[in-house]
Amino acid sequence: MPYERSNIQKLHAYVPGEQPGYRETLGGGDFGEGIVKLNTNENPYPPSDSVMEAIRGLSPEALRLYPPADAAEFRQVAGELHGLSAQHVIATNGGDELLRMLITVFCDPLTPKPRAAEPPPGGEKAPDTSRSVGGGIGMTDPSYTLYPVLANIQDTPVTVVQRTGEDFKLPADYADQLNAAGCQLGFIVNPHAPTGQLESLDTLRQLANEFAGILVIDEAYTDFAPHNALPLLQEGIENVVILRSLSKGYSLAGLRYGYGLASPAIIEALDKARDSYNTDILSQAAATAALRDQEYAKSTWDRTVAERTRLTTALLERGFTVPESHTNFILAQVPKPRAEQSEAPDQAKTIYETLKQQNILIRYFSKPGLTDKLRITVGTPEQNDKLLAILDSISP
Amino acid sequence: MPYERSNIQKLHAYVPGEQPGYRETLGGGDFGEGIVKLNTNENPYPPSDSVMEAIRGLSPEALRLYPPADAAEFRQVAGELHGLSAQHVIATNGGDELLRMLITVFCDPLTPKPRAAEPPPGGEKAPDTSRSVGGGIGMTDPSYTLYPVLANIQDTPVTVVQRTGEDFKLPADYADQLNAAGCQLGFIVNPHAPTGQLESLDTLRQLANEFAGILVIDEAYTDFAPHNALPLLQEGIENVVILRSLSKGYSLAGLRYGYGLASPAIIEALDKARDSYNTDILSQAAATAALRDQEYAKSTWDRTVAERTRLTTALLERGFTVPESHTNFILAQVPKPRAEQSEAPDQAKTIYETLKQQNILIRYFSKPGLTDKLRITVGTPEQNDKLLAILDSISP
Repeated sequence: MPYERSNIQKLHAYVPGEQPGYRETLGGGDFGEGIVKLNTNENPYPPSDSVMEAIRGLSPEALRLYPPADAAEFRQVAGELHGLSAQHVIATNGGDELLRMLITVFCDPLTPKPRAAEPPPGGEKAPDTSRSVGGGIGMTDPSYTLYPVLANIQDTPVTVVQRTGEDFKLPADYADQLNAAGCQLGFIVNPHAPTGQLESLDTLRQLANEFAGILVIDEAYTDFAPHNALPLLQEGIENVVILRSLSKGYSLAGLRYGYGLASPAIIEALDKARDSYNTDILSQAAATAALRDQEYAKSTWDRTVAERTRLTTALLERGFTVPESHTNFILAQVPKPRAEQSEAPDQAKTIYETLKQQNILIRYFSKPGLTDKLRITVGTPEQNDKLLAILDSISP
Repeated sequence: MPYERSNIQKLHAYVPGEQPGYRETLGGGDFGEGIVKLNTNENPYPPSDSVMEAIRGLSPEALRLYPPADAAEFRQVAGELHGLSAQHVIATNGGDELLRMLITVFCDPLTPKPRAAEPPPGGEKAPDTSRSVGGGIGMTDPSYTLYPVLANIQDTPVTVVQRTGEDFKLPADYADQLNAAGCQLGFIVNPHAPTGQLESLDTLRQLANEFAGILVIDEAYTDFAPHNALPLLQEGIENVVILRSLSKGYSLAGLRYGYGLASPAIIEALDKARDSYNTDILSQAAATAALRDQEYAKSTWDRTVAERTRLTTALLERGFTVPESHTNFILAQVPKPRAEQSEAPDQAKTIYETLKQQNILIRYFSKPGLTDKLRITVGTPEQNDKLLAILDSISP
C-alpha cells in the first residue's frame, strides 16, 4: 500500500513546456545551437549586465553564510519601485511558490475520509458528507494549468468558470460564480494567458469588490502591458494579491524569482507559510540588481512590444486571426479556410510539428477551443523573420 | 475577519538563529567585520573554488531560459556519489523544502471544522469528532524546531517523544510510541541536534522495520560523522527517506540546496508535490560542482573534526561537560559548581550574553533541560582560540 495521501496518489503532476538540450546550459555553454525557442515565453534578450555583475561579484563568504531570511533589501527595492512599502512585498522562489503559499494559507483542504471508515455499530451508515468542507480556488478556463495541480496537492476544490466565445472573454458574473461556490481564492491572469487580452482597472476593482475571498491577479506578463493593477493596492484594497515574476520581464527564467504584492496583513499571513530561507543569496542579489536597472528592462519590453506588433501584422497578412496581445506572446488562429478543409482538421498541429522539425519551437494545446490556435512567443527580429520564412515555405 | 485558515492564524512562525549585519553580504562585501559567528552551524571554511567558477562561468543565456525542471545533472551526480541512482534523488530548495514536501505528501491534515457549525435541527449536538482524522508527524524533544511549524502549516498532528536523561538518549520504544499515535512520518536527526550524538546503523534499521510510516533520517550534519544511513537505501528498505543539505558540509548555507534520497517510488510521490521549477540554474550548477569536488569538501570536514576534538578537550579542561559530538557543533554544559550557585542560576545565559557583547555569537536555548548548556559551532582554529580566550577572561 502506498504511503502517500490519497489525493497525492491520484495527482497528475504539472507538465512544463518542453526544454530541449538543457544539459549544455548547466555547464555555462550555449543553449541548443540553432534552435529558435518561442514556446515558453522567455524574454528574447539577455538579462541586464548589472545582474551578471551582481552574481559574479558575490563573495564565497556570502555563500557560506545563511542568506537574509526575509530578503529585506529586495523587498525594500520592490516596494519603492511600485509606490508601496517593503511590508507590501513577499519574495518567493519563482511566482509558482507564491501560488502554492496562497493556496496553503487561504484554502481549507477537503475533509479526508477516515482511513478505516466503518458504519456505526448496528446502525445505518450515515450519509457521506466527509468531503464537504473546503472552499477552494476559482479560475477561468483556459488559464494557467498549474493552479488546479496546486489545488489538488492541497486537496482543496477547484471551481472552473468557462470563458465565453471564440475570443475567450471573461464572464461578467465571474465573482458571483466564485462566491456561489464559496471559493476562498479567485485567480485572474492579467494580461491573460494564453490569449494576451487585458482587463481594465475598473473591471479588476469591481471583481475585488464583488468577490468575498482573496483575488489573485497574476501579472506574470504585465511588463508588456500598458497598465497594471498596482493602483488597487495603492488605494488600500484588502483582498487583492498581485503576483509578479522576473522570468519574463527581466529575462531571468533561470533564476526562479517572483514576488507577491498585497496589504501588510496578507503579506504577514503568507509569511507564516514561507520556508524559513526560501530565496537564496545569489537570486536575492540578482533580482535586486534586475529591479534596479529599470532602464535596461524597459528597453527589452519596448523592443518586444514593437516586434509583437510587427509579428501580428505579418501573421494577419498571412491569413491568421490574431487578437490584440498585451503580453510577450500571441495566440494565432490558423487561416480559416485551411482549418475547415476536412482533409486538414489539424492544421495548427501540423504547422507546430513542421516548425519543430525545422528547429523552431512554439506551443500547441490539444484542448477544446485551442486546437486551431498556436501560441508563439515574440522573439528577436531575426527569430521572428525565421519563423515567418518557414511559415511561408510550408503554406505557399 | 481574517481570510487565512484558522490553523495559519494560530501559527507562530519559525525563528531562525540571529544573522547580524546582513545587508553587506547582498552587495558582495565582507560579512560583519570582526564578528565571530559560531551560532548557526555554518562550515567555517569557504566553498570550493570550483563552485565559484561554476557560478561565475554561467552564461546570461542560461539565466534567460527556464532551468532543467528536474535538476537531472545534479541528481545523476548525487546518485552516483551515494552508490544509488538518479531515480533515488530529489533536489530541493534547501533541506527545509524537502521537509515541507514530505509533510504535504504523507501527512493528512486534520478535519477542518465547518465554518458555520450548527447543531442539527431540533436535536442534540453531535459529539465533536471533526478534528479526529490525521496521523501526522512524530519527533523527539529536543529536535529541529521547524518540524512542528511545518506540521502546523499542514494542520497535521505532532507527537512529541521526550528524550531521556541528562544526555537526551533516544527512547528504545520510539517506533512503538509513533505507531501508537498513528504517525505517518517519523523524524530522527542523525547525528542529533543539538546534542551531536549518533545512532548506530542497527538502531536505524530496527526503527525503520518497526515503524509503520515513513522514517525520515535528517542527515544535515552527516558529513562530520563516521557513518551514515545510506546502507539502508542500498539494502532496498522502502520506508526510509534520507535528508541531505549542502549548507553545512559544502559551505553553501547561502545557496539553499538540499536533497532527498529514497526508493524511486517515494521519490516519485514527492516529485508530484514539487514546485514546477523548484531549484534555479545557478544553484543547480553550484551544487553539482560542490558534490563533484569531494576532495575539497572532505578537507574542510577533516579540519572541522580535528578542531571539534581540540575545542572539546579545551572545554573539558575548563570544567564544562561536553558529550562526544559527531557534528560541526558541540553542546557544552557549563561547569557544575557555578550552575549550582544560587546567585548565578543563569550561568549559561550569562556566558552567551558576555560573548555576544564581545562579538562572538553562540546559541543559547531557554528551554527545559537546555538552560545550563551552550551550543557552539566549531570554527576555525583562530575563531576557537578567540572563544577560549574570552571564556578564560570571564571565568578565571
